[in-house]
Amino acid sequence: MTKAIRIIGLDPGLRNTGWGIVDSIGNRLSYVAHGVVQSNAQDDLAQRLCQLNQELLKVINLYGPHEAAVEETFVNKNPASTLKLGMARGVILLAPAQAGLTVGEYAANRVKKSIVGVGHADKNQVALMVQRLLPNSGIVTADAADALAVAICHAHYRRIQDFPLS
Amino acid sequence: MTKAIRIIGLDPGLRNTGWGIVDSIGNRLSYVAHGVVQSNAQDDLAQRLCQLNQELLKVINLYGPHEAAVEETFVNKNPASTLKLGMARGVILLAPAQAGLTVGEYAANRVKKSIVGVGHADKNQVALMVQRLLPNSGIVTADAADALAVAICHAHYRRIQDFPLS
Repeated sequence: MTKAIRIIGLDPGLRNTGWGIVDSIGNRLSYVAHGVVQSNAQDDLAQRLCQLNQELLKVINLYGPHEAAVEETFVNKNPASTLKLGMARGVILLAPAQAGLTVGEYAANRVKKSIVGVGHADKNQVALMVQRLLPNSGIVTADAADALAVAICHAHYRRIQDFPLS
Repeated sequence: MTKAIRIIGLDPGLRNTGWGIVDSIGNRLSYVAHGVVQSNAQDDLAQRLCQLNQELLKVINLYGPHEAAVEETFVNKNPASTLKLGMARGVILLAPAQAGLTVGEYAANRVKKSIVGVGHADKNQVALMVQRLLPNSGIVTADAADALAVAICHAHYRRIQDFPLS
């Protein structure tokens, strides 16, 4: 029997960071869990970063994923938002690295293409396809749908790398 | 006798993060240590963030500062650099928060003004004044001089807060 590879996908944000976990067993995908870790907007920035990192480490320790995946970030927003998102992204990428996991990064249109089949799908299409691919997930929020989507994308690409077509 | 408050100042960067530690005892400042923590540019981003965070935690555990201070970041560079700096800054701000320290943030011109007396001083003037204020520091690199400068700035401002003029 093929061993399951457990993958955690992450959608970083300072207020809400979505996470989603799937098992990839051969050609099959199986839903494990999803959720959102949050920071308290009333707290200092350093404390908020600490909340995100610690909550995510708890999720990783609880579910024991083998690999992590994250979407590459758009940087065409205003610089202050980019800096804030960068800080959140830093402490989010740190968590799997602290747990010894590799972290795959995927461009947004690659994620969409591997889920919906086209690179310019909107958020609702992605969420609907995630729920179709992972029927046990139930209704998922947008943050968690994006996180599950990047986990699914990673499952596809790591399989291609394991069994190259050429 | 007034109790010494030990302050770590930080100058975040993905490749080189400067740190500098001073003791503030009443009106006096006393040099403790300075250095640079680095990440290996050959490694994955998540690993590099982990290196910075872990090395900085070692410095904090070794010297046991009570408070931390960091310069606010300019965000007028290109967006990709801002994102990268944001990620480094996230894991750097995280380290003192993990150790339970508060982190003060200061605008660059406030730091310069509290060291040199004017807000538009250049890097060399800051480094020279840092060495004059902390004669035991010896020659310091630019990253570490900026880190010591923000620690000195924090020492000044926390004293003003303790003994308000009004």
